Amino acid sequence: MESIKRIKGGVVAAKGFVAKAVSCGIKDANSSRLDFALVQSLEDCVTAGTFTTNRVKAAPVKVTQAHLRSEGTLQAVILNSGNANACTGVAGINDARYIAKKVGKKLGLRQRQMGLCSTGVIGLPLPMERIKARIDELCDSPDRRSGTDVAKAIMTSDTQHKETAVSLELHGETIRIGGCAKGAGMICPSMATMLCLITTDAKISKDNLERATQQAVEHSFNRITIDGDMSTNDTVLVMANGASEAAMIKRNSRDYKKFVEALEWVMLELAKKIVRDGERVTKFVTVEVEGARSYRDAKAVAEAVANSALVKSSWNGEDPNWGRIIHAVGYSGARVKEELIEIYIAGLPACLGGLVADTDLETLRRAVKAKEFTIKINLNQANSDYTVYTSDLSPEYIDFNRSEYAYWKQNRGG
Amino acid sequence: MESIKRIKGGVVAAKGFVAKAVSCGIKDANSSRLDFALVQSLEDCVTAGTFTTNRVKAAPVKVTQAHLRSEGTLQAVILNSGNANACTGVAGINDARYIAKKVGKKLGLRQRQMGLCSTGVIGLPLPMERIKARIDELCDSPDRRSGTDVAKAIMTSDTQHKETAVSLELHGETIRIGGCAKGAGMICPSMATMLCLITTDAKISKDNLERATQQAVEHSFNRITIDGDMSTNDTVLVMANGASEAAMIKRNSRDYKKFVEALEWVMLELAKKIVRDGERVTKFVTVEVEGARSYRDAKAVAEAVANSALVKSSWNGEDPNWGRIIHAVGYSGARVKEELIEIYIAGLPACLGGLVADTDLETLRRAVKAKEFTIKINLNQANSDYTVYTSDLSPEYIDFNRSEYAYWKQNRGG
Repeated sequence: MESIKRIKGGVVAAKGFVAKAVSCGIKDANSSRLDFALVQSLEDCVTAGTFTTNRVKAAPVKVTQAHLRSEGTLQAVILNSGNANACTGVAGINDARYIAKKVGKKLGLRQRQMGLCSTGVIGLPLPMERIKARIDELCDSPDRRSGTDVAKAIMTSDTQHKETAVSLELHGETIRIGGCAKGAGMICPSMATMLCLITTDAKISKDNLERATQQAVEHSFNRITIDGDMSTNDTVLVMANGASEAAMIKRNSRDYKKFVEALEWVMLELAKKIVRDGERVTKFVTVEVEGARSYRDAKAVAEAVANSALVKSSWNGEDPNWGRIIHAVGYSGARVKEELIEIYIAGLPACLGGLVADTDLETLRRAVKAKEFTIKINLNQANSDYTVYTSDLSPEYIDFNRSEYAYWKQNRGG
Repeated sequence: MESIKRIKGGVVAAKGFVAKAVSCGIKDANSSRLDFALVQSLEDCVTAGTFTTNRVKAAPVKVTQAHLRSEGTLQAVILNSGNANACTGVAGINDARYIAKKVGKKLGLRQRQMGLCSTGVIGLPLPMERIKARIDELCDSPDRRSGTDVAKAIMTSDTQHKETAVSLELHGETIRIGGCAKGAGMICPSMATMLCLITTDAKISKDNLERATQQAVEHSFNRITIDGDMSTNDTVLVMANGASEAAMIKRNSRDYKKFVEALEWVMLELAKKIVRDGERVTKFVTVEVEGARSYRDAKAVAEAVANSALVKSSWNGEDPNWGRIIHAVGYSGARVKEELIEIYIAGLPACLGGLVADTDLETLRRAVKAKEFTIKINLNQANSDYTVYTSDLSPEYIDFNRSEYAYWKQNRGG
């Protein structure tokens, strides 16, 4: 970690990437909020992607997957918020292809060199007339200063834009990794899709980039996919254009390890930003499980606790309620022995040997009054562990998610 | 169904059962709310039970299971609310056994003829001094009029007591089935444990009663176990004392079918009451899935939709949001084809062929303004179906569940 430095520039911090964002009125016909964006590399990019496992996949996911299968590289990604282009059938696919083709043409690229990411409401067609009217503007002089604009253009219910970038040295040469992301409702990253676009000027083969991406996603975004739900649009894309002076990163080399470490750092930073900015979130909670009989058991326990509406409600109420936690441990499906379970809240024993510990209740209460704390659960069975990053669940979350009816009404009428 | 008649009396409607409920101050030391109850049969009862699958089981569950394993019959059940006697270790087991022994002695029964059900906060010892002080009163003249008192004594966050009873004719002789239940938070029947005690004067073997109970639970309480979570205390007990004049019910006979149908009716009635009285619930929603490739797929889809916080929030907001529904269908794990999915809200097509249907939006909106409605999802793949009964999720639910701290503080101090 000491070799990784934070730098500015977000998704265009890496050499050879430029960006642009414009307002199309997709989010709101009457505002000038940014909602249509482009990230372009000056050279073709080896590209790795991880996509939603939802069986209902949005058109941009299907189209991008097809493009990646066919060429294995991308040179530009088009992003929009306000409309997910999901459950839009053949017309939705055609709309996505049309945008890729038109933007590609403007940039002198083939349709298949374009990736697409959309987020927003499901089931409505993209407002193509408004989009078409802005394609020229979108492609007009993308630059190295507009990374933040892209991060803003993909926001939906996010209250803050999310970007980060780092540099590191590989044998004396600098490489850069930067990215932006958008967040999610905190129970399931549902309508509020999780999107992440990462760019790097490292030189790396497609195989190695895919392997590195999988590992980094596993240790970052998958640790916040709180109940395993995935939206129709979830996408993580990593583009490597090789524009740095550093040599090709070889599998299992020291450089590869450093690259993966830095990629993980960038993704984990963005993932944590997503949790902190979850809808109406007031607490950032790390759930650490250890002593499980298997990786699978540790994961099951961590996710059961992190997804329990009753546990999350108690955090919102600043109630150091270990009873609800042990109850979730019990129904997680993991092999546990009640009499061995230990639960620590911010390091303080709340439950030992399955029974209430004698930590003063006021002390525990103060611990959960903090904005961030860790719940550690030791199953005392074996050596597997797992960590999940999560949040509380507030009455305001539900209130916030009660209705998109006004939006539909406006965009569809009758 | 035409042969089943509603009757009064709840859990003591069947011949040969008596009951009593008293106030122990377990729920609240400063109130006289009923919280300690007894249901007794005048004869030993063939008894079937289904218990929580949570690996952390409360002491009363462990003790009752042991009693049933040893004798296969029960003659009385002791119930309390306010304290779950869960995560209380060996001391909790000893407390439960002590109560069974003392109450049994008073009634002239052996400890092993007693069942126990507790519900309330996890992790605190039972207030044994207060309980001991009331055992004499509890056992003093149980009667046939106190069924409703028992239903009231097991309430926790329930706003209404839940009981029902029916009679039916088997070859000209009347048998009765009655019961009471207590409810549950509507996301997972967690701290607010699901308890149900059913009594009947039918004559039936242990094997047949167990089989009938399993089938009836599968079609009632399991259809509201909304996300598969089970609390540490969930218990359904069915006691049959054979006190009616009807003949022994034989396996696969017409009488057996009628008995199962009536038992299902009683359980489904109680299960629906639990949903309707869920914490801060404003909607009762039936989710019907059909056209699935397997029972397992149909169940996965119905439960994914019924458990989605985003779907449930939209119902609370009276938003006819089929996008969130199809998204849950997609991540359910079931084998689905997006382009075949149909979603109907109160019979009105909202989504056909995976695309928005042309039903007027205002019409759909009016449909979800009703207090009760049905969501039908047709996967159009094969012939399996499944139905779940569920509710909306309100901001008030989260608010209500934020903290039990005051309760802990009062009962444990420091």
